[in-house]
Order: sequence, then structure tokens, then C-alpha cells
Amino acid sequence: MADKHEKGSKDGITVKKEENFSEWYTQVISKSEFVDYTAVSGALAFRPDGYFSWETIQRAMDALFKAEGIVNVYFPLFIPERLLNKEKEHVEGFNPEVAWVTHAGNSKLDERLAVRPTSETIMYESYAKWIRSWRDLPLRYNQWNNVVRWEFKHPTPLLRSREFLWNEGHCAFATKEEAEAEREVVLGIYNKILKEYMALPGIVGRKTESEKFAGAEATYSIEHMLPSGISVQGPDFHSDGQNFAKAFDIKFLDEEGKTEYVFQNTFGFTTRELGVMIAMHGDDKGLVMPPKLARIQVVIIPIYNNDTKDSVIKSVRELSKKISGIARTFVDDNDAYSPGWKFHEWELKGVPIRVEIGERDIKADKAVVCRRDNGKKQDVKIKDLPKMIESLLADIHQNLYDKALKALKASIHEVGTYAELKKIINGTGGFAEAPWCGSPKCEEKIKNDIQAKITNMPSGTQGKAKGKKCIVCGEDAKHTVNIAKSY
Amino acid sequence: MADKHEKGSKDGITVKKEENFSEWYTQVISKSEFVDYTAVSGALAFRPDGYFSWETIQRAMDALFKAEGIVNVYFPLFIPERLLNKEKEHVEGFNPEVAWVTHAGNSKLDERLAVRPTSETIMYESYAKWIRSWRDLPLRYNQWNNVVRWEFKHPTPLLRSREFLWNEGHCAFATKEEAEAEREVVLGIYNKILKEYMALPGIVGRKTESEKFAGAEATYSIEHMLPSGISVQGPDFHSDGQNFAKAFDIKFLDEEGKTEYVFQNTFGFTTRELGVMIAMHGDDKGLVMPPKLARIQVVIIPIYNNDTKDSVIKSVRELSKKISGIARTFVDDNDAYSPGWKFHEWELKGVPIRVEIGERDIKADKAVVCRRDNGKKQDVKIKDLPKMIESLLADIHQNLYDKALKALKASIHEVGTYAELKKIINGTGGFAEAPWCGSPKCEEKIKNDIQAKITNMPSGTQGKAKGKKCIVCGEDAKHTVNIAKSY
Repeated sequence: MADKHEKGSKDGITVKKEENFSEWYTQVISKSEFVDYTAVSGALAFRPDGYFSWETIQRAMDALFKAEGIVNVYFPLFIPERLLNKEKEHVEGFNPEVAWVTHAGNSKLDERLAVRPTSETIMYESYAKWIRSWRDLPLRYNQWNNVVRWEFKHPTPLLRSREFLWNEGHCAFATKEEAEAEREVVLGIYNKILKEYMALPGIVGRKTESEKFAGAEATYSIEHMLPSGISVQGPDFHSDGQNFAKAFDIKFLDEEGKTEYVFQNTFGFTTRELGVMIAMHGDDKGLVMPPKLARIQVVIIPIYNNDTKDSVIKSVRELSKKISGIARTFVDDNDAYSPGWKFHEWELKGVPIRVEIGERDIKADKAVVCRRDNGKKQDVKIKDLPKMIESLLADIHQNLYDKALKALKASIHEVGTYAELKKIINGTGGFAEAPWCGSPKCEEKIKNDIQAKITNMPSGTQGKAKGKKCIVCGEDAKHTVNIAKSY
Repeated sequence: MADKHEKGSKDGITVKKEENFSEWYTQVISKSEFVDYTAVSGALAFRPDGYFSWETIQRAMDALFKAEGIVNVYFPLFIPERLLNKEKEHVEGFNPEVAWVTHAGNSKLDERLAVRPTSETIMYESYAKWIRSWRDLPLRYNQWNNVVRWEFKHPTPLLRSREFLWNEGHCAFATKEEAEAEREVVLGIYNKILKEYMALPGIVGRKTESEKFAGAEATYSIEHMLPSGISVQGPDFHSDGQNFAKAFDIKFLDEEGKTEYVFQNTFGFTTRELGVMIAMHGDDKGLVMPPKLARIQVVIIPIYNNDTKDSVIKSVRELSKKISGIARTFVDDNDAYSPGWKFHEWELKGVPIRVEIGERDIKADKAVVCRRDNGKKQDVKIKDLPKMIESLLADIHQNLYDKALKALKASIHEVGTYAELKKIINGTGGFAEAPWCGSPKCEEKIKNDIQAKITNMPSGTQGKAKGKKCIVCGEDAKHTVNIAKSY
């Protein structure tokens, strides 16, 4: 056992999630062997369990995109400086965090190359060449790639990484109506993946002018609330109108023979969501994986002594075969560790179901089944096991989602006065739902005063603002907004 | 029709493949809309057809890797300079073509960051942390990502790109035997993908010492011969022995409690193969896609006039439904173009099968089916069409492979004298198969003298060298080698 313990990474989590969320999070992401730190500050190695989660999300989302007619392309990693500079707001938004390639081998390049922080500028130059007539529209392209945003804030693994993986969708349409209609489609896909794969709820809404994407006309986001009381922005969708079309001269000949600019959208879903998933579902023992994203869904741990070893291992192998068609199954028959040590290890890694079998269980034709999400144990007849596993995996997923949704709802506090707002933000944290007049001044005051921001204006809450007064200036409120501290 | 013609990209290929291969290749890759040039010299945009081919290859290969127990991970794009410098031969091999990030935003970085030309150095620092005992081995990881090699030679799209997509496998074993055994597995997977998806043959063999991968003990490659008579190196496999293990201190405690260095392999398959595929199968009309990699496998072109339009379109829609379960099918019912124009366009894009249907065909309960690979047309009864399409797709694939294999075999010229070698290399091109003594001096002379190199030492040809004399120095030959000019 000595060699494993030397390794250190299998040590348990030494702090409680409720007492020190930030340290808990830092420990759990790496001790679970989901991701690891590297020599590059702010960039992670995705280990097999971590990458499995991402590629599962990617495949599921990719199939949904394709069913909608959105197809994949791939554009270069580097963007020449002159291209990045073409859309004024865009470049101002991204310039402070661009990683610049200045040399190749021993030669200085004639022009600096940006490592893509996002690909609008390199893609749209091609769009301008490719789109000529209304027949070329809609053009609905997506890329799966890596991007770099060299933020100088302290990086938080996954949640605020300097390199991350994502999808970036970039679609062009002949009309504003079609461009707008795509929002529901894309946010629907994002919500479906969040809910059905990651067991994560979120709050859909529109960003304020000051928080929208650099270069967009409007940004819509899905916002999460972490157990720390601090929010994190999830996937987003940007309506670009004709901003980029004008900067990059993306025009088409319409059916009447008139030349028009296209209307564009962009949208992205990133590996940040894996951080949200870990933060929401994990507990003091480690990760708790939503079953669909767990590389191993069921771990079988044989319990034996020297006399019973052969017969137990044999039974376990047979059982494993039966379950393998239903769930990704692993038999941990490593002799060097005790069952207790193994329980601890697989709990740390968040495997949804543990099956324990010893000689006495075999004789009684049963096994002990333990859920990772709530720790509940039960005896199950061997013949019922495959069916039980299937329904347990679904139950676990539902339970994780229900818990996360309950926590999200509980995190929203309606506030009517500035004093209440301050109390929430500086106290428990979470979202303060407040009426706002729409003025950037009031928004700015919240930022400066209590270091919180308007995360978004939740969809379906517009009516709520009627007759209310802005929480900052007391003028008539136009919007209902969520305010929170944010990663 | 005017707007399409303005676009220009739908113009046909203006040179013959046999007469000017290089210009033909340049035209065909972009006019077919497979890839396109971008503002970054040497880096391409993969358009939907091009990326579809790559993702199909990727998924097929990924499934084969996983079935062998090789799992996916993801490591950072950037490598700190000090890490890249850890293995001496490796850094010397790659330094001349590394793209360097020196600034982030407006700040100069303390240490330059290499954009990965390959990921040994960033991965192996983590391996040293993760591998402790024999129980952690074998560790068989793969990444799918983008890499940058900023070569100063004139880039050739796909064949010699400054950024490309690839798989990079990096496995670690307890013993040399296990590490060596993986070569057959991986080269088997690569050959399977080449043959069964890309319809490409190749010559497997070992690289010479001077041509092996920087840092490896031995490199094995699959070499292709293009119709230009110039070879191109395909996928490769490197036996690293303990070179990197020693540089990065990747040690493990063996079963006896002794500390040993691991044995390592790396292997890669890149988007360069798409260039080889285009070069081998394409013809004077444009691309010829191997059916499995064609985003559209069957295009149906209705032929009608104003009177027959409705009934023809109706029949075509019904037919399309029948075929869709068998092949990726597209109906081109665009009114703005003539059938002839459409034939030309879909030939340029390399769609494997074209189905033409007009009113007379419908009355005769038949359609005209045309193969892209050999242009043969035949009448097929509507009810036989689905079955016919299925077998035609298989036939087309086989025909492309057979033709490519025939061309590969015809490109190999056994030579016994230096004069013969020169004649082949400076004449028709292709591979000159020659006996070689194994001395770097003789190899160097070939390079300097006739600007050709030893592509590899084909597997299974060792015996052939017995009793023969080195083609350069006349000493006893040790190896049979292929010599060619190379991209």
C-alpha cells in the first residue's frame, strides 16, 4: 500500500465544503484525479475522467446541433493583429487578455498573431468571401476548439482558466427574425445538456449593456449560483445584429437583387461548466458525478479473505459481465488495498454506484448496493441487480438535479431596498433579485459599492418590475435583475 | 445564375492533374470548398466537407483506440520554455519552428511560452507526478488537438501546414516488450483507417537515425507516394525507450520494490492525410471522395421543365426518403441552375454518386445513376436503387483503393546503381528501392547530391539487402531503403 500513499493524491479532502468552499474546491478537482494543475499557470490537464465528461457533453451537443442543421468547421488558432482590430468594441473587450505570438523559431514575425480568445474576426473574413447570395444563407457553422484568455485575475481551475475548451457557434442569416429565432433553439440545446447530462439548472436572461459580449447587440446567458454564494456565468448567446457584418463586409444579394448585410449570432458552452458541476454536486468525501458523465458508473468491490478469494472473484466477474451492458462497470480486485480504502477512493472520484459482494452475499444470492449521492445502502438480489442499477442511475441523476434546483431557488432573495441588497450580498451571498431603472450609473454604483454585478435580467420577470422603484436611485424600475458577486 | 458565377469558387479546375500537379492540387482543395486559405499563411479553414472528413476519421480511430484501452486526455496548448528544453535532441529538433508567445495583453511574460509543436514535454512532467507504482502502468493516453510548427519552407495546404489537427498518443509501460508490442497495434489501427476510410495504401517501415523523431530511439512511418512522384510521410510511431523518462524523471516502483524508468511510445495521425487523399483520388474534374468520408454521398438531381416540375420534384422527394437510410443524400432542386451546371458542381466536390431523374425516367420507373470515380452511367429500376446505392458505395471505395495501390506499386523502382537512382529521382520520380550500407555519410550524399532522402526502410525487406552492395559506397548493404523526393 505504501507506494500509493506516497503518491498523496489519494488522500481525502481535508476541509468541509460548507466551511471552506474555495479550499474544498481546489482539493476536490485534483485529488479526485479529474483534472490537474500544470506548469502553465491557469491551464489544466484534463485527466481521463475529466476529458470523458467533456467528450460526452460534446458528442451529445454535437448531435443536437447537427439535427438543427448547424455543421462543424475549423478555423486557425492564430488571428493576425490587423484582423482582430477590425471591430472596435470587440478588440477593446479582448485586447487586455490576448496572448501574443511575436516570434517563430529565431525570427521576429512581421505582424503579431493573437492566439484566438474567440474566433469572430478570423471566421468572418472567410464568411465575407463565402457568402454571396441569399442561397448561401443561412450559414450555420460551429467549431469545437481551445481558446486562450490570459486574464490577470487569480485563475480558478475550470471556472476561470486561461485556456479552455468550448463550442463556438457562428451563424449568419438573411433576416433579423431568423437570427433571433435561433436564440430559443440554441439556449434550448444548452439547457437540455445542462439538465439531462450535468444535472444543472440555471437562470436564463439578458445581460445588461455594460455586461454584454464585446461587439454584440445583446447577450443572453445562463447563470449559476455556487454553494459559496458567488455566481458564475454559464453558456451564452450573442445577437450581433449587423455589427460584425459591417466591420467585415459580409454582404449578400437578396432575392430582389439588392445587396444587404447579414445578421449574425454567436454562442458558446465551455469546460467551465465542469467546474460548476463539481461545485454543485460534490460533497465532503469528494466528487459526486452525474451518472451520464461518469467514466465509471458502477464499481464492484469484492470482499474476501484467502479462503474465499477465488469464489468471490469468480462471482464478481460474472456479475460484471451482466452489468456491463447497462452501465460502465469496473471491478476493483486490487489485492494491495483493503475494501475500506477502496470505498474511500471511489467515493473521492464520485463513481455513482458501488456494489459490494462477499462470500456471505453470494450464498444469500445478493449484493450490497450503495449510492454515492446520498450514501444509502441496500441489499439487492443478484438477479434484480441489472434492472436496479439502471433505475438507480436515473434516480441519482434526478436527485442531483432536484437538489441543485432547490439550492438555486433558495439562493434567490427578492430585495426591495438598497440596505437589503447590501445585506444579502455581504451576508449569505446568492442572487438578490431587485428592480432596476436601467441606468448604467446605478449599475456602476452597485459594482463600486458592494463589488457585485447584475448577472442578468431573468427571462419572464419583466412584468415584476412594474410599479416598483429602482433599488439604487428610487426612480421607476424598468427591469427585474439578479445581482450577485461573481467569479 | 449571375450571383453564383461572380463568386468564382464554383469555376472548374483549369489545369490537368497530369500536366501540372501542383497547380491542380492548389485549385482543387479550395474550389471544391473542402478547405480554404486564410489570412494566416500556412493555416487553413476546414469548411464543412473538409471537417466532416476529419471528424469521421477521428471518431472511427477513437473507437479503435478505446477498444485497445487507450483513453483521451487534454493538456495545455502552451509549454513553458524551460520544459521544452528538458530533452536535448527534442528541443533541437523543434526549436527552429516553434511559435513563441511573449506577451499577454500589454505585459511581457516572465518566461516565453511555446505553442505546442507536440506535447511530450508538457505531458511528461505530469506523468512523472502521476506514475508511482507498477499498478499505474501501462498508462495509455491520447489527445486530439491542434499543433503549430512554423516551418519557413513554403507551406503546401494540408500536406505542409503551419497548424494542423492530429491525434498524439503517449503511452508509458513497465517493460520494453510491452512498449514494443504496441507498435503493431497502433500501426494496425492507422493502416485500417487509411485503407477502410481513406482508400489509401502506404509503405510501413523504419526511419533512419537521421530521419527519426527528435528524442526517439526509433521511428516507424507509413509513407505515401503522390502522383507528382514526390513522397509524403504519413502517420508515425516513435519508440522513445527511456529517453524522455530520464529527462522528466518518470519512475515507478516495480513489483520487487525497485525503482525503474518507464518505457514510452508516441504516435500521431494528422490532417495531412486529407491532402494525400485529395492528391491520390482527385481528377481533372475535381475531388473524388472516398464514400465513407463524403458528407454527401448521393446527390439527386431532378430534371424537369415548367410542365413536369411538380411531378418530378414529388418523385425525387420520395426517392430521397428511401435512400436516406442508406446513404447521406442531398436533393439539389435549386431552380437557378441547369442540370449540367449542377453535374459540374457536384463533380467538383467529389460526391460519390449522382442520381438523375426526369419525367421520362419516372414513367419508365427508373433513374440514371452515375459514379464519380469512373464516370460510368447506368439505368437502374427505382425499386432496385437503395440496394444498388449501397453496393455502389462499397465498389467505389474498393476501386479507389485498388487504383491507389496499383499506383503505389508502380511507383517503386528497384535500383542497383547510383546512376539508376539518379535517373529515377530526377526523371519520373517515385520511390527508388535501393540497398544501403547504413552509413550516415552515404545517406547525406544522397541528400546533398540529388535532394532526395531515405523515406523509410520498408518492413519485410531486410532479407533483400543480403549479398547486395550499398548504392552509394559499394560496401556490403545492410538495409533495403526507399529513396524519394519528399514534401
